[in-house]
Amino acid sequence: MKIIPFPSRKTWQYLCQRPSIDRSKLENVVRNIIDEVRSRGDNALRDFTWKFDNVSISEIRIPASEIVESEDMISEDLKEAITVAMGNIEKFHLSQLSPESHIETSPGIKCWRKNVAIEKVGLYIPGGSAPLFSTLLMLGIPARIAGCREIVICTPPDLTGNISPLILYVAKLLDIDTIFKAGGAHAIAAMAYGTLTIPQVYKIFGPGNQYVTKAKEMIMLDGIPVDLPAGPSEVLVIADKSADPAFIAADLLSQAEHGPDSQVVLVTNDQALLTRVKEETDKQLAQLPRGDIATRALENSMLILLDSVSECLEFSNVYAPEHLIINTSDYRSVSEKVINAGSVFLGKYSCESAGDYASGTNHTLPTNGFARNYSGVSTDSFMKKITFQELTQKGIMQLGPVIMQMADAENLQAHKNAVSVRIKDQ
Amino acid sequence: MKIIPFPSRKTWQYLCQRPSIDRSKLENVVRNIIDEVRSRGDNALRDFTWKFDNVSISEIRIPASEIVESEDMISEDLKEAITVAMGNIEKFHLSQLSPESHIETSPGIKCWRKNVAIEKVGLYIPGGSAPLFSTLLMLGIPARIAGCREIVICTPPDLTGNISPLILYVAKLLDIDTIFKAGGAHAIAAMAYGTLTIPQVYKIFGPGNQYVTKAKEMIMLDGIPVDLPAGPSEVLVIADKSADPAFIAADLLSQAEHGPDSQVVLVTNDQALLTRVKEETDKQLAQLPRGDIATRALENSMLILLDSVSECLEFSNVYAPEHLIINTSDYRSVSEKVINAGSVFLGKYSCESAGDYASGTNHTLPTNGFARNYSGVSTDSFMKKITFQELTQKGIMQLGPVIMQMADAENLQAHKNAVSVRIKDQ
Repeated sequence: MKIIPFPSRKTWQYLCQRPSIDRSKLENVVRNIIDEVRSRGDNALRDFTWKFDNVSISEIRIPASEIVESEDMISEDLKEAITVAMGNIEKFHLSQLSPESHIETSPGIKCWRKNVAIEKVGLYIPGGSAPLFSTLLMLGIPARIAGCREIVICTPPDLTGNISPLILYVAKLLDIDTIFKAGGAHAIAAMAYGTLTIPQVYKIFGPGNQYVTKAKEMIMLDGIPVDLPAGPSEVLVIADKSADPAFIAADLLSQAEHGPDSQVVLVTNDQALLTRVKEETDKQLAQLPRGDIATRALENSMLILLDSVSECLEFSNVYAPEHLIINTSDYRSVSEKVINAGSVFLGKYSCESAGDYASGTNHTLPTNGFARNYSGVSTDSFMKKITFQELTQKGIMQLGPVIMQMADAENLQAHKNAVSVRIKDQ
Repeated sequence: MKIIPFPSRKTWQYLCQRPSIDRSKLENVVRNIIDEVRSRGDNALRDFTWKFDNVSISEIRIPASEIVESEDMISEDLKEAITVAMGNIEKFHLSQLSPESHIETSPGIKCWRKNVAIEKVGLYIPGGSAPLFSTLLMLGIPARIAGCREIVICTPPDLTGNISPLILYVAKLLDIDTIFKAGGAHAIAAMAYGTLTIPQVYKIFGPGNQYVTKAKEMIMLDGIPVDLPAGPSEVLVIADKSADPAFIAADLLSQAEHGPDSQVVLVTNDQALLTRVKEETDKQLAQLPRGDIATRALENSMLILLDSVSECLEFSNVYAPEHLIINTSDYRSVSEKVINAGSVFLGKYSCESAGDYASGTNHTLPTNGFARNYSGVSTDSFMKKITFQELTQKGIMQLGPVIMQMADAENLQAHKNAVSVRIKDQ
């Protein structure tokens, strides 16, 4: 962990740079995968699963019986935990379904917006070392609340050709039965363009490796939106002398264990705290099963000393962290000034893992500085807002001359005529 | 105008296809423009303005005096019209700033979202045959309401090296004085990466030609979001026998005059109406100054006859039009079933040009079928939503075991530890 005492403001932009990832080399590989899926459909999927996941599959879709049986393979304790988490996530994401008000902008002119679900969405759930069923909760719950008509899940099979019962169990809770054994760039291509087995969707969500990310970029250029641009996960902790170093060390490590490219930053105005956090981190690190990964992530991490908590917050706004933990005595007033962050955790008891799993907020958040210009996933991400307007005769009579003046000034006579035919005979 | 009587449902997808635009050929040209702007900054901008706009400019930024003086060049009538339109647009976009509620998802766990403006945004206003000051209203008003700290306008100079006083006047009303003479792909590159004169922004809005569109695609891959994917403007009108053919013809023509690639569709259940609309269109077309453009657009247009109004609406949902006019006697109940559309105009008096200019809704809308998965521009487009959470000691004590169970199941021990350090000593 690099200790950086009192960096001058000139260096902040430099310190806030994330490692740049060049995905241009993947372009040809992923283009080929997409083309193959578009031309050969399910057969291409089977071939790529053999090639990349080292397993041969015949049925791409998970049979209903397997989804039902998944329940028996989960402990009651874990089921209860998932039920509680699900309740909180539902409550928070339901609250995002705010009704839009009808506005009379001028006499006889009513305008409003209506939230309408995107009809078909695809959720990509990565495989790998652990089944990320929490990601399925975070994507599936808002998709259901939004009212998406068709929700498709793609996730890679393990070496035995199976999907984790945890994923299947959560899908069952979400009442989703369209689950497909497909991972990597070919799964993204399948959902973007459709195959005989996998339905085409209108928007694709979910994290993934660099091939998945590149595929999401490429389908985006074909007009299929995705949840967020990708980047490694990150946390920035702001703490003062009131903070418990053990809490901070645990928070830093919980980010560091995600992957060797995870970004971990502490910004504090208290030198003694900084030293103690470093010691605590080393101590806790020694106990971690994923210690190797965390150690590598910590090599790029920063412990930054600044003059005041408010300066720490200014630094954070430049960094634009995915997760921001404010562990200071006056955290409420500090939090008022947050401009760029994905999700903010306030006070000593709000650890990031609460938001990762169970408090109710979404854990699909903008990384890599994208908190400057992107929101995390919410119920909104699964809907679009359609505007409506209704003009009465009085409305067009009064506003008509305004429209005609403006259309004239833009040399659009037919726009003007659309008004004049309506008011000339009145 | 092609008349298509009773097309079978199998053909709907085909009928709803828009002309595909291959922009891959532009890739090298636009890549070169972007690279030049990144390496040579303002000098590259001057060179490209000379090359593409055929005019030599020295100062890229419009001097404040020129903005002030613009007012004298606009007629009082037009100024009054702009003031009325601005008031309506402001009223509707202000109503989109809904406060978010704080939710207690479980005892001791509060979660909420906060809308925060994107700090720096760029608005691209095309030049060409007419100065599109209405587009500046539609982008500048929500940017101001959102509270964006820095709003940058780029727009190409005319052959005399000047910007239309209408653009400058509207910018003045919006209190924006950072206006730059730059059009085309180089303007997009300048706002995306910054030059000595033009500030770098975090999101870019506005329509443009195919070079602008390609540049927006390319910067998007660098993590700079844009408002919407591009496509030609379009209207779909649903009408029954209660509709006035002259109104419909005027609406179709107001779309057709935008450009030869405009998409214009009438769907009706009344054959007599269809015939009369065709006659009316020919009659009105003869009077239009932009008749050549409209004629070319009408060559690709469709007049579709279906069995019922509800079938017309089903067709519309497959087409996913940017603008949908429902000109039927029961337009309110029909409108309940709209799933895919950008903006909907209800009843005989709600012409599209009302929404283009002055009713209050935004005219920056998803084209090309993107109404399936994108919303039009709104105040939301200029903000991001940051989630916050605050757990009390009681909150983490109660929810802690849930988080620990789930972290365990995902093999993330450090995530579990972040909870256990907080609850073990209590």
